[in-house]
Amino acid sequence: MSGAILVAVDGPQAAQWAELFRSHGEGRPVRLWPEIGDASDVEIACVWRAPHGLLATLPKLRLIVNLAAGVDHLLADPNLPDVPIVRAAHADLSMRVTEYVVLHTLRYHRRQPLYEAQQRQRLWKEHPQPAASEVAVGVMGLGVIGTEAVRVLARIGFRVAGWSTSEKLVDGVETFHGPAGLDPFLARTEILICLLPLTKTTRGILNRSLFARLKRDGAAGGAFLINAGRGRLQIDGDILAALDDGTLSGATLDVFPHEPLPPESSLWAHPKATITPHNAGDILPDILVAEVMAQVARLDRGEPLLNVVDRTRGY
Amino acid sequence: MSGAILVAVDGPQAAQWAELFRSHGEGRPVRLWPEIGDASDVEIACVWRAPHGLLATLPKLRLIVNLAAGVDHLLADPNLPDVPIVRAAHADLSMRVTEYVVLHTLRYHRRQPLYEAQQRQRLWKEHPQPAASEVAVGVMGLGVIGTEAVRVLARIGFRVAGWSTSEKLVDGVETFHGPAGLDPFLARTEILICLLPLTKTTRGILNRSLFARLKRDGAAGGAFLINAGRGRLQIDGDILAALDDGTLSGATLDVFPHEPLPPESSLWAHPKATITPHNAGDILPDILVAEVMAQVARLDRGEPLLNVVDRTRGY
Repeated sequence: MSGAILVAVDGPQAAQWAELFRSHGEGRPVRLWPEIGDASDVEIACVWRAPHGLLATLPKLRLIVNLAAGVDHLLADPNLPDVPIVRAAHADLSMRVTEYVVLHTLRYHRRQPLYEAQQRQRLWKEHPQPAASEVAVGVMGLGVIGTEAVRVLARIGFRVAGWSTSEKLVDGVETFHGPAGLDPFLARTEILICLLPLTKTTRGILNRSLFARLKRDGAAGGAFLINAGRGRLQIDGDILAALDDGTLSGATLDVFPHEPLPPESSLWAHPKATITPHNAGDILPDILVAEVMAQVARLDRGEPLLNVVDRTRGY
Repeated sequence: MSGAILVAVDGPQAAQWAELFRSHGEGRPVRLWPEIGDASDVEIACVWRAPHGLLATLPKLRLIVNLAAGVDHLLADPNLPDVPIVRAAHADLSMRVTEYVVLHTLRYHRRQPLYEAQQRQRLWKEHPQPAASEVAVGVMGLGVIGTEAVRVLARIGFRVAGWSTSEKLVDGVETFHGPAGLDPFLARTEILICLLPLTKTTRGILNRSLFARLKRDGAAGGAFLINAGRGRLQIDGDILAALDDGTLSGATLDVFPHEPLPPESSLWAHPKATITPHNAGDILPDILVAEVMAQVARLDRGEPLLNVVDRTRGY
């Protein structure tokens, strides 16, 4: 008989995940943390912000599945067992994040908040509208998700460039990399989209000094920020200061250093901030569970796993 | 010496158009209606909602240029001279309308109005998010603009179909046409995008009977309408009734039977209506003027004109 699947999810969806794995788990017993049962029976751990140390208690563990793209919490576990880690990087996840990124880029490009404000005043007034080809969009992070976003934004007509920590090439798109590439990338970027993983290098990268190096969009006066990467990439206080002094004309934030965003945060009511509840990459859980079971099947057949996490790089 | 260009534009941008033609007109005199000067000298008329009868007073007229896509007002002139009519159908115009259509489709698909309402309440709450591939978007009107919109929406992942009055094929996209194709097209469509021209056949097509035949989107309860075609395609009162009774969950309207939308219209303050000031297809006028001068050059060289209006079809 096949070993058990342990679902260890921090959040209200934990029971729903366990139920889905029971439906799709192809006969494997499914346990829901903290009810682990016989720890020596668990072969697969499907985790999201599971407590550090938990995985080290599973002697027969063969595979760790991170149920989202960001593995920073998982890799911070000082007792992480030496078994393969795969993360959700389904094509569907890339498309969901791309929808979010395209929506919010177009929302700024087409001045939708301004037209909604005019509607409240029953004001019929057009404003000069540049072509997308005149607008420089920059995407930080060129993994599977960032590459899909770059391609769709280019198809729509934006002047798109990408930046990544190590060199990445995307057909037909200008790319920059590393510390030396950051300044020229920022200097040409009016709408900045962040899809970076959280690593020692990227923590806090979305700070006041970075915002000051962005190109200022002509019409709005400041640049725009869209962060659908990880919360600890950004310094909330620096974003507020940049919105207030006009360095940024708008910020759309799906992630925060502390989630849920605390009710007392000044970001909620800032007129230039758009807040979403970490749902840019939400996919229907049954799609993700089917993907996980396909990885388990690869493991059982001895085939190479997909989307394996590199512990040294940190993503 | 080449004949004059007459600019006859109803609206506040008239002088700006004339100035642009003076910069780009390659030596042709430019007249701004109502100061026509010597009528026998005018060869090119660049018009937008010009008074009926005006063009018949120009004996040497060789070309009528409609400065936007919709030619319904022009073709309603009972004394329209028998010279070629071309309309603005620049690739840039298609891309601007596509930006608008993609923005508003994604805005409904990703429930952006709901998340903005939650932000005002400082509420962090996710809602189930279907994949774009589960959402049926339908585009009415498969001319140059509609075809571009269909292609980009399909690239983003939506399940897209098109409908047109006469048969049109778009690679990889399901298409319907004519009266017989309308019911099956509507029955599978949750987000309806209208990019039709205004003709005898299409006038008032966006009415309560049509809305009732749309597929109801699961999560929101009703369908969504986006009209960036022409104002007289839609019956404003029917849209309000459909929003109120839940047949429609949202309507984004860029055009209206009476523009500017009168301040007393109930659409302005309807919580499910999004109003924009007929700017979906706004392009920078200098791009359009350069395009017009390229058409004039084709005329002078005896080459075929592009985007010629078919008076019988009405677009």
